Amino acid sequence: MKQSPNHNSPWQLARRAERMNPSVIREILKITERPGIISFAGGLPSAKTFPVAEFARACATVLREDAAAALQYSASEGYGKLVEMVAERLPWAVDPGQILITTGSQQGLDLVAKVLIDSDSPVLVETPTYLGALQAFAPMEPRIVSVRSDKSGVDVDDLTRKHVAGTRFLYVLPNFQNPTGRTMDEARRAALVERAAQLGLPLVEDNPYGDLWFDAPPPPPLTARNPDGCIYLGSFSKVLAPGLRLGFLVAPKAVFPKLLQAKQAADLHSPGFNQRVIADVMQGGFLDRHVPTIRALYKSQRDEMLSALAREMPGADQEDPDQRMTWNKPDGGMFLWARLPKGMDAIALLPKAVDKGVAFVPGAAFFADSPDSRSLRLSFVTPSVAEIERGVAALAAAVRENMPVTA
Amino acid sequence: MKQSPNHNSPWQLARRAERMNPSVIREILKITERPGIISFAGGLPSAKTFPVAEFARACATVLREDAAAALQYSASEGYGKLVEMVAERLPWAVDPGQILITTGSQQGLDLVAKVLIDSDSPVLVETPTYLGALQAFAPMEPRIVSVRSDKSGVDVDDLTRKHVAGTRFLYVLPNFQNPTGRTMDEARRAALVERAAQLGLPLVEDNPYGDLWFDAPPPPPLTARNPDGCIYLGSFSKVLAPGLRLGFLVAPKAVFPKLLQAKQAADLHSPGFNQRVIADVMQGGFLDRHVPTIRALYKSQRDEMLSALAREMPGADQEDPDQRMTWNKPDGGMFLWARLPKGMDAIALLPKAVDKGVAFVPGAAFFADSPDSRSLRLSFVTPSVAEIERGVAALAAAVRENMPVTA
Repeated sequence: MKQSPNHNSPWQLARRAERMNPSVIREILKITERPGIISFAGGLPSAKTFPVAEFARACATVLREDAAAALQYSASEGYGKLVEMVAERLPWAVDPGQILITTGSQQGLDLVAKVLIDSDSPVLVETPTYLGALQAFAPMEPRIVSVRSDKSGVDVDDLTRKHVAGTRFLYVLPNFQNPTGRTMDEARRAALVERAAQLGLPLVEDNPYGDLWFDAPPPPPLTARNPDGCIYLGSFSKVLAPGLRLGFLVAPKAVFPKLLQAKQAADLHSPGFNQRVIADVMQGGFLDRHVPTIRALYKSQRDEMLSALAREMPGADQEDPDQRMTWNKPDGGMFLWARLPKGMDAIALLPKAVDKGVAFVPGAAFFADSPDSRSLRLSFVTPSVAEIERGVAALAAAVRENMPVTA
Repeated sequence: MKQSPNHNSPWQLARRAERMNPSVIREILKITERPGIISFAGGLPSAKTFPVAEFARACATVLREDAAAALQYSASEGYGKLVEMVAERLPWAVDPGQILITTGSQQGLDLVAKVLIDSDSPVLVETPTYLGALQAFAPMEPRIVSVRSDKSGVDVDDLTRKHVAGTRFLYVLPNFQNPTGRTMDEARRAALVERAAQLGLPLVEDNPYGDLWFDAPPPPPLTARNPDGCIYLGSFSKVLAPGLRLGFLVAPKAVFPKLLQAKQAADLHSPGFNQRVIADVMQGGFLDRHVPTIRALYKSQRDEMLSALAREMPGADQEDPDQRMTWNKPDGGMFLWARLPKGMDAIALLPKAVDKGVAFVPGAAFFADSPDSRSLRLSFVTPSVAEIERGVAALAAAVRENMPVTA
């Protein structure tokens, strides 16, 4: 829709509204919600991991013991006890006064954008990067610049080349990244934090998946290494449940007050009832018992997907990665990143895969520019082990039938 | 904080961050949270009206019958059943596809600002107006223009004078307005909707208090008269509880898709669990039984405040409204609007009133420009009847001691 006034309508849209678009993923998810489709597309935690009985108990307790406060308006910062619990769980010393409870970590991205991005401000992102971050930043009209990334994370030298004066921040998701499942290694983290400090470049570190490691915890967060130079975003969506919409951010004193004011203007505060329910569930170290069960489940599902891919995908005998499908082995999180043989396009393959009964997200959606059309994102957490087997077999059939004929 | 880079800090704030300020009311509420202070300041619904038992039952039901969906990610539009319930309750024909569930109606204001306001866009507001709306609009850097208002609502001729080409909308709160408690009468509503249509001026109608009428329902909403020219904002905060942070908006097809995309970028969706709990509570016509009890309670508290003011305030024998305190009689809602005798200033009076044990909000906070320094907002819903008596007596003592000596 154009911003020029429409003479049949009194509505004149803001210029930024032109930057807003329906999420590609959202549109794909609609198609793939047909009954019977096995979906590797959505980033939906397995419902088996939701601690339903604990939530039920906590709802009853909060409404019995603290209803008047839980149901009333409350402070924009968040519920004090939950804020303290968040501070205690973080692996560096954090003043609770620098923690803000948000309506999911998606809201953290919205607040960061409002407070830090002017029209045409350069903002650096990984290649590829989380689509929801691009959507949250877009209304503030940044100039998004992609930084080359490899399996260890952001390429620090390319970062230096792409950085210009006035760059507002680098957005980075170091643990089990969405979409690639990649983890930034220790050496890269150290190098990135050092280079960013030299450049005077703030980092926005998004860590929704960090607790979901399979064999060993990831290296310490970037923010732990330079708290004054980083904003850290966390979430309860992957360790408890997304449907309560609670996350948090940790920000240095130079930006916290403005983030808090932006929060207050955005929705006054996140639901006080939900905050108390989560605090009640977390009491007594619940996450220390619960999260290992999520890790074990997701690890078994990743393993199933890896062995099904190795078993089912055509071209296993090909050495040349252009002649076969390739994929990585994430050390945690929810996603695996795959690449089709040369000459294939993930967007073109999707409807054919859906016809076979399986869905995925074409990787192109996650590139701010120059998409890799062969890439695709496979979530291994939503379907069951049996569904993963059948889904990968269906995907392999679609790939086989649509592979270019080679000499 | 200035936007120029601080050489000790890598953080450069967006220009809009300069427009963000801590809420005056928030700062006042902090002062007045001292134990023992009777507060007429906050706009907090009476906790007596929260249907705690119904919430407890609904939480248990939702977690027993629908946990996997309630705790999962879900559609940005909102929970289908709740959307339909909202459509059914609205007093005009609304397609559920034009309803968006929001994280409190405050988020509705944030989304409207993002989608409709460019930097320097003229936006019209009542005099005085809801402070939270000014805060939600501010980050998008509008040029706020105040339209003269009287006890029947917006002055339509002044609106015509203040309207210029490119004005994005008039923000208006027609029922039991915050801060004045005023209700726009039928003739004014008809005239406003007609004039706005002639001018090609969209209306943003905020209606958080409309259900809280005391003797008779207010006239039909502005939006009911011209749905294509209005965005309507509603809330569950005043009829159920604010702590679940749920509201909704109704928007014409010309703007709905962009509001939905802005919603998705802002927090993906409002908590699905809370939406199901509210839908479960509302089932079977609960609000038709519950809301009359809120009306009766608030009416009795308004009456108590009116009689206490008449009994306690000095200068009852004065004919000249400059020589005494004056106040209005709201037909519903939560607030009463009062005015100090000439020569007095509500901001100066506040610390003296707090010393006497009572707090209020100086009216100046609600003016986009040229504040009336004699005005103040008194909430009659948070304190009990006994506290209203004592609070008004304390306020009267503070006024008496600080009145200018007249000849």
